[in-house]
Amino acid sequence: MAAAPGSAGRARQGRGAAGGAVRPGLTGSPLDRADKLRGDPEAFAALLGDVRARVLDLTSLDPVVTAEGMIGWKSLAEAHDQAELILLGLDGGVPHLVEWRMGQPDPIPRSPAVFRALATLSPDQAQIYASARSLLEYHRRHGFCANCGAVTRIFRAGWGRRCDACGTEHFPRVDPVVIMLAEHDDRVLIGRSAGYPPGRYSALAGFVEPAESIEEAVARELHEEAGIRVSDVRYVASQPWPFAHSLMMGCMAAAADDALTIDATELEDAIWVSRDAVRAAMAGDPDAPFLAPPPYAIAHTLFARWIDE
Amino acid sequence: MAAAPGSAGRARQGRGAAGGAVRPGLTGSPLDRADKLRGDPEAFAALLGDVRARVLDLTSLDPVVTAEGMIGWKSLAEAHDQAELILLGLDGGVPHLVEWRMGQPDPIPRSPAVFRALATLSPDQAQIYASARSLLEYHRRHGFCANCGAVTRIFRAGWGRRCDACGTEHFPRVDPVVIMLAEHDDRVLIGRSAGYPPGRYSALAGFVEPAESIEEAVARELHEEAGIRVSDVRYVASQPWPFAHSLMMGCMAAAADDALTIDATELEDAIWVSRDAVRAAMAGDPDAPFLAPPPYAIAHTLFARWIDE
Repeated sequence: MAAAPGSAGRARQGRGAAGGAVRPGLTGSPLDRADKLRGDPEAFAALLGDVRARVLDLTSLDPVVTAEGMIGWKSLAEAHDQAELILLGLDGGVPHLVEWRMGQPDPIPRSPAVFRALATLSPDQAQIYASARSLLEYHRRHGFCANCGAVTRIFRAGWGRRCDACGTEHFPRVDPVVIMLAEHDDRVLIGRSAGYPPGRYSALAGFVEPAESIEEAVARELHEEAGIRVSDVRYVASQPWPFAHSLMMGCMAAAADDALTIDATELEDAIWVSRDAVRAAMAGDPDAPFLAPPPYAIAHTLFARWIDE
Repeated sequence: MAAAPGSAGRARQGRGAAGGAVRPGLTGSPLDRADKLRGDPEAFAALLGDVRARVLDLTSLDPVVTAEGMIGWKSLAEAHDQAELILLGLDGGVPHLVEWRMGQPDPIPRSPAVFRALATLSPDQAQIYASARSLLEYHRRHGFCANCGAVTRIFRAGWGRRCDACGTEHFPRVDPVVIMLAEHDDRVLIGRSAGYPPGRYSALAGFVEPAESIEEAVARELHEEAGIRVSDVRYVASQPWPFAHSLMMGCMAAAADDALTIDATELEDAIWVSRDAVRAAMAGDPDAPFLAPPPYAIAHTLFARWIDE
């Protein structure tokens, strides 16, 4: 059944229609980003007069999840008087917004409520929340002009900040991150950081640096964190990650051998695991040698694709 | 022949060793980024006492190309007294640096000298220049703290800026960009912007937005700029682009049909071209229907991979 306009059509994590591949988390939002409207202040003002307009309901920066497992919305009349409104997009012509006030309290770091919500929401619902969260995280830390130090103001319906002192236009940051499974002898390398829940292991990851390809970032991070050399880096899938505003790019790579030199400042542990071990972890088997990452994480997608290969 | 340490081993654009695929431009630098050293001020100070240390030779932000087609270097003694030094990396233990002074003149926009240099340099040499250029572009526009407006200072050997007023640590920006060929009926879609040289057409491109996957960005950009709907987005290859600090991610996508609605604010023209037309353009045939992008651009890699498919 096709989703009706305005209904923000729901799709559970799982097999996609094309090719049977597992769909990454935090993707598939039905919102039209309506780029043209952002640059047209009159058109945006008209949207703010639309009685159908919906404003994302948040507690601090955490989402409100309805009994039906959807993200919660309120009316424009319920928005804060001093709030500025950011256009997340249109769904069947209905404006979907999020409110922003400079100086609002900082979000709770790694709030359990957010991760409970992500575990409940469908990927498309989670992506709507992610778009709001990444923009709010950006505005929260970018109130001043990096070029001259003056106070900046929101422009382009929330998709940028402008400095009236020096004329610089700033656009929201998106930080590319590689996240990858090195493979050797039908096993993959997984690791855990000190802050992970007990038993949880995931794919290794790191930020892409200036003047580096995705393939080079994968090789560098695996060498820095685990001491291994890889070749044949293969891109698998991507998804956004809104803490704060990353683009996660999932890859596979072939390791030359399995001897590890772990960087203890980055990883608490790293181990090679078999396909059966990953299958058990993904099935939630209590005897699995590790706890798999949740379905909304791209590491989950990487594991799912690997055990299906 | 293996490259000798310190020689910044040279490799021409062309077939790679693995799989015969065309290697993207601006990749393959022999420099070890030496992340551990960046965070160790004593170790970095020791590097600055190494008489073998080399400092990139620049005219404004343009590279100096030697008679041998390599990027030019000078000694530490030749660096400007007031310059701060940024660690590009190590080659055979030899520190390779670039100097930075806040308030140095802005680079010449789209300087012809840079593009002449990129046409001459091997991809690995060009990547060394790209690493310097992206970092200098970053520092040039980020002298102030976006969080509080205070003046920031360089830290981590040039790979970040620190605000002593509010304690925020800022890391260089990398802007992910999708660049793609939509395919329909064995033809691909190419376009030109108003600023292109006469006859030049390339792949369409655009910045990835917050909370968007690569695949979604490809579909959105092709719809915004050319009015087409695509599916089956396939990642091909990536490379850095140092104007200012982008990560170019080349993709293919299957277009549902070939009817175009061109956004005249983004594109001057867009056309569908056959495999033979792309082959002719890539061979530099004067009768080709368009002028192909240069080998150092990832669009060139996309075209080369497509005609080889």
